[in-house]
Amino acid sequence: MDAVDVIRTKRDHGTLSDAQIDWVIDAYTRGVVADEQMSALAMAILLNGMTPAEIARWTAAMIASGERLDLTAITRPTADKHSTGGVGDKITLPLAPLVAACGVAVPQLSGRGLGHTGGTLDKLESIPGWRARVSNADFVAQLNSVGAVVCAAGDGLAPADRKLYALRDVTGTVEAIPLIASSIMSKKIAEGAGVLVLDVKVGTGAFMKSVEQARELAETMVSLGTAHGVRTVALLTDMSTPLGLTAGNALEVRESLEVLAGGGPADVVELTLALAREMLAGAGRTGIDPADALRDGRAMDVWNAMIVAQGGDPAAELPTARETHVVSAPASGTLTRLDALAVGVAAWRLGAGRARKEDPVSAGAGVVMRAKPGDPVVQGQPLLELHADDPARFGRALEALEGGYDIGAEHEPTELVIDRLA
Amino acid sequence: MDAVDVIRTKRDHGTLSDAQIDWVIDAYTRGVVADEQMSALAMAILLNGMTPAEIARWTAAMIASGERLDLTAITRPTADKHSTGGVGDKITLPLAPLVAACGVAVPQLSGRGLGHTGGTLDKLESIPGWRARVSNADFVAQLNSVGAVVCAAGDGLAPADRKLYALRDVTGTVEAIPLIASSIMSKKIAEGAGVLVLDVKVGTGAFMKSVEQARELAETMVSLGTAHGVRTVALLTDMSTPLGLTAGNALEVRESLEVLAGGGPADVVELTLALAREMLAGAGRTGIDPADALRDGRAMDVWNAMIVAQGGDPAAELPTARETHVVSAPASGTLTRLDALAVGVAAWRLGAGRARKEDPVSAGAGVVMRAKPGDPVVQGQPLLELHADDPARFGRALEALEGGYDIGAEHEPTELVIDRLA
Repeated sequence: MDAVDVIRTKRDHGTLSDAQIDWVIDAYTRGVVADEQMSALAMAILLNGMTPAEIARWTAAMIASGERLDLTAITRPTADKHSTGGVGDKITLPLAPLVAACGVAVPQLSGRGLGHTGGTLDKLESIPGWRARVSNADFVAQLNSVGAVVCAAGDGLAPADRKLYALRDVTGTVEAIPLIASSIMSKKIAEGAGVLVLDVKVGTGAFMKSVEQARELAETMVSLGTAHGVRTVALLTDMSTPLGLTAGNALEVRESLEVLAGGGPADVVELTLALAREMLAGAGRTGIDPADALRDGRAMDVWNAMIVAQGGDPAAELPTARETHVVSAPASGTLTRLDALAVGVAAWRLGAGRARKEDPVSAGAGVVMRAKPGDPVVQGQPLLELHADDPARFGRALEALEGGYDIGAEHEPTELVIDRLA
Repeated sequence: MDAVDVIRTKRDHGTLSDAQIDWVIDAYTRGVVADEQMSALAMAILLNGMTPAEIARWTAAMIASGERLDLTAITRPTADKHSTGGVGDKITLPLAPLVAACGVAVPQLSGRGLGHTGGTLDKLESIPGWRARVSNADFVAQLNSVGAVVCAAGDGLAPADRKLYALRDVTGTVEAIPLIASSIMSKKIAEGAGVLVLDVKVGTGAFMKSVEQARELAETMVSLGTAHGVRTVALLTDMSTPLGLTAGNALEVRESLEVLAGGGPADVVELTLALAREMLAGAGRTGIDPADALRDGRAMDVWNAMIVAQGGDPAAELPTARETHVVSAPASGTLTRLDALAVGVAAWRLGAGRARKEDPVSAGAGVVMRAKPGDPVVQGQPLLELHADDPARFGRALEALEGGYDIGAEHEPTELVIDRLA
């Protein structure tokens, strides 16, 4: 088997054989296939596509490159959620304890943010003392005792994907549906949960800009999950405007606590409940209304236990940024548009995100939205609050927001959950 | 400027700006753009193409990555030839001294063989004592004294191309016309000759399998040469059957000496004279018949001086392989086909070529053809002679030759020179 033959097959619009896929993933993981060979192959896959059978084999080979977590010691059914990434997407924070409070264990391996989309681990790390690293033994123990773990993936899980993901990031080969789907699903299948609910984002703030692209990605991932014995459902949800009223690490933790306390922005509550219902239904827990667990404090109890189990202090003061800058409404009327990408890039530039994976993030930085599309605004009222540790960051964040919102007469409401695929 | 932006531009079917091309070539040469980024870009170029303006800028940037030889100290006009590579293509060996004997200096930087096509330097290195390395000062001095130099390119010439060529070889991105054209022309333009004649091979034994592909490559290269002030002409020549009666290093030197002595196979003589006439015409030396210089020994005199100037002994015995195996004609009739690729792969497997650029080559190994298409053959007569140092090599060479020739009733003669572009 030879790397150049594999590359040429895909380059010339051929179909990779099972043996070629198994070999190239294994050889890449072992360093026998070089980065420059895999990046050429990734570009050929991006431009020439893959058949469903190729994607399935590619995913299986990535799972086989490492360990698959054994969750048979978990006494409850297990369900996980994965979001393809958006702006203000803090849903995991209230969702994981909520579903655990309803009797279904949530084993969630999360990532850090890169670019304008935030990362769940970055958000949780704004809680003093909280640790993202959990050993496999502690992972299983915490799932049985608390019912939910949100932590970093260990090195043993789909190592081929970790290597390939880092390569794609620097070689312009991220935006390939076969590679996105196999990357997400190899990790999620290796994680071992029995149920997986996918939140596939669509819109300016998402990777997938159109419903057609998002549906193709969702269908691909649902097929992959189902083929590997994981009950998989996907919701297509709107990411043309940010979720909730905050984008930033500690800012989003605060908003998640409001939701766990029974309040919080309507869209965050709606999506949290929609995803919780899918996870519970997949796990066979029908007839349970997760809204009850938000109202009666059970979800908050699990949150507190989950934070404590990973070394965090749920009662500690959350960090705040040193400087604030307010953007006022330039006119009166209705806020008709608030662009997710503009807000995401602004939050990123304020320090909430990172440009390279080695960069630190600011816990307090981000954007607070004082109005959302559909809200009436009065000229001069605060529209957006920018938070940063360094006031020098405001300039480029304001540039990102230019043209990012409209004030007009009428607002056409949009559906948050666009479609459901199973 | 960012490598991922450049890659994305080409990936998304865009046109690279001059600034992007200049930056990416320079940054790649300096190691700022990584191999895995350049290979992804090369695959995007291969699959999505380049405009003529992009190819011109890319070539100029590769020339600018190193030095451009200064041949102003050469008292005679200068002309060079480049072949895109074929089987039995020893034309440079008689051609360079022949053109020099007609009053035009030939500064030729050549390469080594890779895969089934032989390399001029490998052939010349079968001459005892001959050295491929020549300093810039000796290069100019030898051009003035002898009139011809065939040697290895120094490290200072188009270093971006040397790095990119090695990368393309291992990443399945060799077969892209923009990259082939810019690679050849960056070296040839940097070499500084005033006239360039391109021998673009077409057929099974060539990179370009169809006349359409070969014409596209030839047109691209002629435009590039002309744009850089080099008088450039291309001949499209047949490479469906090997040139001459030998494929191998010392074997081809022997055949070249026959041509320089006024004999040799008709096709080698025909192509040598056709290319010599183009080089002389480009250099303004009209009214000179190069055939005279073969007949009267002047070309052989320059050959001897050229070999001596680079340390070789033109009178020394050439190496021969230790073992020979004869393939007999399986039937009587006319040899209607003798496939260039089959003979090239056989010679390669006998030891004449290398699989990796670090491999040594055998000076004596190769194939001697005892008949060429159109020749009558009698069942049992020798058809092909295989030469190797190790008899274990005959098996796989014979496999390569299976189906590589036909004996039939009628042979349709083909033109050696298919087209001329200027």
